[in-house]
Amino acid sequence: MDYGTVKTPQDLKRLDISQLDGLCDYLRGRIIDTVESNGGHLASNLGAVELTVALHYVFDCPHDKFVFDVGHQAYAHKLLTGRGDRFDRLRKNDGISGFPLPDESEYDAFGTGHASTSLSVALGLAEASARLGDGGRAIAVIGDGALTGGLAYEALNAIGSERLPVVIVLNDNNMSISKNVGAMSKYLTRLRLSKKYLRIKTEIKRAVSIIPLLGDGALHLLDKGKRLLKRVVLSNKMFEAMGISYYGPFDGHNVGELIEVFSQAKRKGGPVIVHVMTDKGKGLRSAVTDPEHSHGISSSDAGATHDFSSVLGDFLTDAATRDKRVTAVTAAMAIGTGLEKFSLSHPDMFKDVGIAEEHAVTYCAALAAGGLKPYFAVYSTFLQRSFDQLLHDVCIGGYAVTLCVDRAGAVGADGVTHQGVFDLSYLTVLPNMTVMCPTDGAELRAMLEFSLTYDAPLAIRYPKSYTVDREHTPIEYGKWETVRESKSDITVLCAGGRALDIALAAADRVDVRVVNARFVKPLDVGFLREHGKKGCTFITVEDNVAHGGFGCAVTEYLNSVNSAARCVVLAHADAFIDDRSVDGALAASGITKDNLIKIVKSLE
Amino acid sequence: MDYGTVKTPQDLKRLDISQLDGLCDYLRGRIIDTVESNGGHLASNLGAVELTVALHYVFDCPHDKFVFDVGHQAYAHKLLTGRGDRFDRLRKNDGISGFPLPDESEYDAFGTGHASTSLSVALGLAEASARLGDGGRAIAVIGDGALTGGLAYEALNAIGSERLPVVIVLNDNNMSISKNVGAMSKYLTRLRLSKKYLRIKTEIKRAVSIIPLLGDGALHLLDKGKRLLKRVVLSNKMFEAMGISYYGPFDGHNVGELIEVFSQAKRKGGPVIVHVMTDKGKGLRSAVTDPEHSHGISSSDAGATHDFSSVLGDFLTDAATRDKRVTAVTAAMAIGTGLEKFSLSHPDMFKDVGIAEEHAVTYCAALAAGGLKPYFAVYSTFLQRSFDQLLHDVCIGGYAVTLCVDRAGAVGADGVTHQGVFDLSYLTVLPNMTVMCPTDGAELRAMLEFSLTYDAPLAIRYPKSYTVDREHTPIEYGKWETVRESKSDITVLCAGGRALDIALAAADRVDVRVVNARFVKPLDVGFLREHGKKGCTFITVEDNVAHGGFGCAVTEYLNSVNSAARCVVLAHADAFIDDRSVDGALAASGITKDNLIKIVKSLE
Repeated sequence: MDYGTVKTPQDLKRLDISQLDGLCDYLRGRIIDTVESNGGHLASNLGAVELTVALHYVFDCPHDKFVFDVGHQAYAHKLLTGRGDRFDRLRKNDGISGFPLPDESEYDAFGTGHASTSLSVALGLAEASARLGDGGRAIAVIGDGALTGGLAYEALNAIGSERLPVVIVLNDNNMSISKNVGAMSKYLTRLRLSKKYLRIKTEIKRAVSIIPLLGDGALHLLDKGKRLLKRVVLSNKMFEAMGISYYGPFDGHNVGELIEVFSQAKRKGGPVIVHVMTDKGKGLRSAVTDPEHSHGISSSDAGATHDFSSVLGDFLTDAATRDKRVTAVTAAMAIGTGLEKFSLSHPDMFKDVGIAEEHAVTYCAALAAGGLKPYFAVYSTFLQRSFDQLLHDVCIGGYAVTLCVDRAGAVGADGVTHQGVFDLSYLTVLPNMTVMCPTDGAELRAMLEFSLTYDAPLAIRYPKSYTVDREHTPIEYGKWETVRESKSDITVLCAGGRALDIALAAADRVDVRVVNARFVKPLDVGFLREHGKKGCTFITVEDNVAHGGFGCAVTEYLNSVNSAARCVVLAHADAFIDDRSVDGALAASGITKDNLIKIVKSLE
Repeated sequence: MDYGTVKTPQDLKRLDISQLDGLCDYLRGRIIDTVESNGGHLASNLGAVELTVALHYVFDCPHDKFVFDVGHQAYAHKLLTGRGDRFDRLRKNDGISGFPLPDESEYDAFGTGHASTSLSVALGLAEASARLGDGGRAIAVIGDGALTGGLAYEALNAIGSERLPVVIVLNDNNMSISKNVGAMSKYLTRLRLSKKYLRIKTEIKRAVSIIPLLGDGALHLLDKGKRLLKRVVLSNKMFEAMGISYYGPFDGHNVGELIEVFSQAKRKGGPVIVHVMTDKGKGLRSAVTDPEHSHGISSSDAGATHDFSSVLGDFLTDAATRDKRVTAVTAAMAIGTGLEKFSLSHPDMFKDVGIAEEHAVTYCAALAAGGLKPYFAVYSTFLQRSFDQLLHDVCIGGYAVTLCVDRAGAVGADGVTHQGVFDLSYLTVLPNMTVMCPTDGAELRAMLEFSLTYDAPLAIRYPKSYTVDREHTPIEYGKWETVRESKSDITVLCAGGRALDIALAAADRVDVRVVNARFVKPLDVGFLREHGKKGCTFITVEDNVAHGGFGCAVTEYLNSVNSAARCVVLAHADAFIDDRSVDGALAASGITKDNLIKIVKSLE
C-alpha cells in the first residue's frame, strides 16, 4: 500500500496491525532521506519509530497529550500528524521545526528542547485534564539519558504520589548522546538483564494456569517461580518504590508487543512506566555504531570555518599534561564541546556527569574549593539550567571555575529552544564573574592560558565556529584590543568573532575605529573614558539579547558617569528567535554589515 | 564540667563518650538562648546536635570536609569550632553568620544556603582530596526534605558511580519545612518502619555466631533470618541500587550509637549513606509540634508592617471559590508564602511539590497549557533555580503562569545567600514576561485581580512586608501611576513599596514628581517620552542590583530613543550583600531617603 496516505492518527488506526511494520519502514525511509539533506537528529528519531506508531495506535492524540522529552525524536510523530507533506522542509524557515511546537500543530501538546522536562509537563497536563474532567491521558516519551537530569527525578517524585493517568515511555537505547554515566545507568542495565526473568515469568504463568491439572510437582514449580518473580520485582524496585507501576523491559521495535503493553498501561489508569529497549539509529548502520556523531547532523557547515571546540579540546589536553589540577567536566556533551580527545588521554581528569548541568556547576565549585582547576564545557543554552548554582556555589565563594560556554549566540537550524543569546545577560549579572569573548581560535587559546593562573570565576563565551585566526595583543585583565585604529569619532565595540567580522567588513566601507571588546565584564572603562568625549559615538555589536547584555552594560556605564558620548546598541530584540539560520537570525535583529554601515552613515 | 571549655574538635575528642550527653545539653541550651534573642533556625539546629557532636568525635575536621546542606543546622558545628565566644552575635553584622561561611572559619568547608547542594559539593571535595592525595574524607549532612531537590539526585547518581569516601548523613526528621511530599517521602517512611528488621538482623548475627555450637535447628533459624534480611535489603534497594551502601535507620539522638556507626562508615571507604532519625526541635516542645512556624524565627518584626504573603493567601483563597481553574503551587513554603489557609480550604487546588523549584515551574507551565490558572508562590532567591524552566517552558509557549515572587529585595538576617536582589534582572531578560511590583497590599490585590484575566506569563514581585495601604488608580497594562505630582523637572521612578516609601519621604523635603512604576516590564514608554524632555532627570529607585534591573531598563530605553533626559540609578552595586539588616543593606547601596535628597539637591 501507499503509506504516504497515512496522514493522521485516524488513518493509522484504520490499518491492520500486520501493516504497521510496513508503515514503520516507510517512516524510517522518509526520516533518513530528509535528514540526509536537511540535517537533524537521525539516530534518536530512527529509534523511536515503532514506539511512536504504537502510541498513536493505542492512544487518542491530541485528546491524549503526547510529550516528547528533548523533542529530538518526534519526526515519526510529525509525519503521522498531518505534517508529512511539509516534511521535506524540516528545520527550514518556511518548513517545520525539528522539535515539537504547539504553534505548529495541535498534536504537539507542549514544546520541548531541553532534557528532562517531559515528566513535569505530563503530570501538569494530566492534572489539568482530571480537573477539567475531559478524561485525557498524558504520555511522556523520555530517553534513559534524560533520566540523569534532576528535574526528571523531581517529577517522578511527584508523579509517584499522585494517582493520575500518566504513562511514561522510557525509551532506553543505553547510550543517550555520549555513553551513559552514573548509577541510574547501571540500574537500568540491571533491569535490562532481568529480561530473562520476564521470559521465566511467562513460563510460570503458563504453568500456573494448568496447576489444577497437575499435582504437587506443579506447586513446587510455582514456589520456585515465586522466588524468581521476587528477583524481577527486586530489580524494578526503584520505580516501584516511588509508587509508579513498572512494565518491562520490552523490545522497542516490536510494534505488536508495544501495542499490547501500551494498551495495558492505558487500562491501568494510574502512573505507569513502560520500559522499552531501542536501537538508536535502527535501520541505519553508521548511527548505531557511532551514536554521538550521528546524534545531530548539520546539513552543511558553510565554507571555511573552524570550530572553537577543537581549540578548547587541544588546549586542555595539553594543559592537563602540564598542570595536574586541570579537570574537564561535561554534561553529556564530550564530543560537541571538543573534549573527546581529552577524555581518552586524561580519563582520570575527565568527568562526564550526564545531563545534569546543575550538579556539574556545583561539583566544579567544590573541585575548585578543594584545590583543583575545573573547566566546565557546556552549550550556552544548557548553562541556563545552572543560574542559581553559578550565583551561589561558584560566585559567592569566588571559586576559580572556568566556564567554556560553547554554541553561544544564534545556533541556526536547532532553532528557538537552542539559541545561546541570553548568556551575556545572565552571566554579567553575577557578582565576581568575569566574562570574556574570544574572536578566534588563537585568542581562545590565549584566554585559556590566562585562565590557568586566574583565580576567580571566569566565563569564556563563543559560538560554534570562527572564520580566521588574527594576530592579537596579549590578554590584559579588563583591557580591550583595538583592531583597526582610526581618527573617527565613531568606535565599533565588538563582543566576539561574529561581531568583529561584521565590523571589519563594514570598516572597509566606512571610517570607524574597530575594537575587540574581549572583556564584556569588567568593561574597559579606561577605554570608554578616553574615547567617550562629547561628539563621540560607540556602536556595540553582539550576538546576544540587548537587555542585560554587552551594549546594555556600556550604556549603563556611560550613563553612570554622565558621559557625553552616545551609544548605539546592535543586539537581538526582546523576543524568541525562530529563525533557523545563523545569518537569518542576525539579520532579523539588524546585526549585519549593511545595517552597521547604514548606522555609521546616519551618524556622520 | 564546664562545657564552655570545649572550643574545638580537639577539645571534644579529649572527652569521654559518657560526657557527650552533657555536652549536647550544653550546646542545646546555647542554641535556644541565642535564637530566642537573635532569631534564626531553631528546630533544625536542635535536631542536629548529637549527630554533629558524633561527627566531630569520629572525623577529623577541617582535614575531613563537613558540608551542611542548606546550612541551617550548623549552629552546634559553629559552637564546636572556635566560634562559641562570638555565638551571641549570631546573625548580627559584626557577629557570625547563620549559615556556614568559609570566610568565617576554616572548619566551614563550603558555603551553603539553598537546598540540595551538599552532595555535589561533598563529591567535588572528595575528588579533590583523592587527586591531591591528602586522604581527606567528605561528609555531607542532608535533610530528608532536601532529597526532593533534583540536584541531590543528580549528585547521588554521580556519587554512586565513584568509589570515593563520601559519607552522607541523611538527617531524617520526617517533616522538612512543611510536611514532606512525594514518593521519596513515602519511601523513607518505609525505611523507618524497617527498623524492626534491623533488630532482627542483630539477633540473627548473634544466632549465626553460635551456629557451630548448635545443630540443624540453628540452620533453620538462619534460613528464616536470611529471608528477613532480604526484606531489609529490599527496603533499602533504592540507595543500594545506586551503588551507595546504606546503614540505618539509627536514633539520631543516641551519641554512642552514632559514634559507632560513623566509625563504621569511616572505615568503609566508599560512599555510604547513614540514615538517622531525629526530632526536629529536640529539647524544645513547641518546635516539635509546630515545625514550620519554628523553622525560621525572626528576632523582631519591626513595628507596624503588614505581610504581602497574607494578602496573597487571602486573595487566592477567595479567587479559588470564584474560579475553579485557580491552582496554588508552592515548593515546601506553604506558610512562608501565605498559602496555609488556601491549602486547607482548597486542598485539591493546592500543590506542594517539595523543594523542587524547577519542577514547580515546568509543572505550572503544563497546568496552564492544559487550561488551568496556576500561581507559583516562591521566594525570590529560590526562583533563581528555575531560570531555564521560566525561559523555556513558560515563556516560549507564552503560558499564563503567575509567579508570586516573595521576599524580593534585601531580606535581612538570613544574609548573603537569601537576598532577593537579582529577580528583576533575570525576569526582565525573559521574552514574553511581564513584571509588576506592588507597593502595598491593596495594590497587590489589584494586580492579582488583573492576573486572573491576563493570559500570558506574569511575575508579581514584592518583599516580605509593606508599611501602609494607599489609594491607587486602576491597573492599566504597562502604565505607571503618578503618586505625587509636581512641576519639577525631576521625576523619581519607584519600583516597589520600599522605593516608594523612600521617595515620598524625600518628597516631603525636596520638590520632585513621584511615580509608582508598577510595571517594570514593559516600561511605560509613553510616560518616559512625555517627561523625558531636555533638561529633565529621572531618578530610578529599586531594591535590586543595577545591572539588568529597573533603572538599567529605563537607561536602555532612553538611550535607544536618544532621549535628552538623564537617568540616575539608585540600586544595589555589583556585589553580594552581606549586611544582615534590610535597612543596612539598602543604606550600603545608597538606597535611602537622605541619599535621594542629596542627589536631587545636586541636580537642582
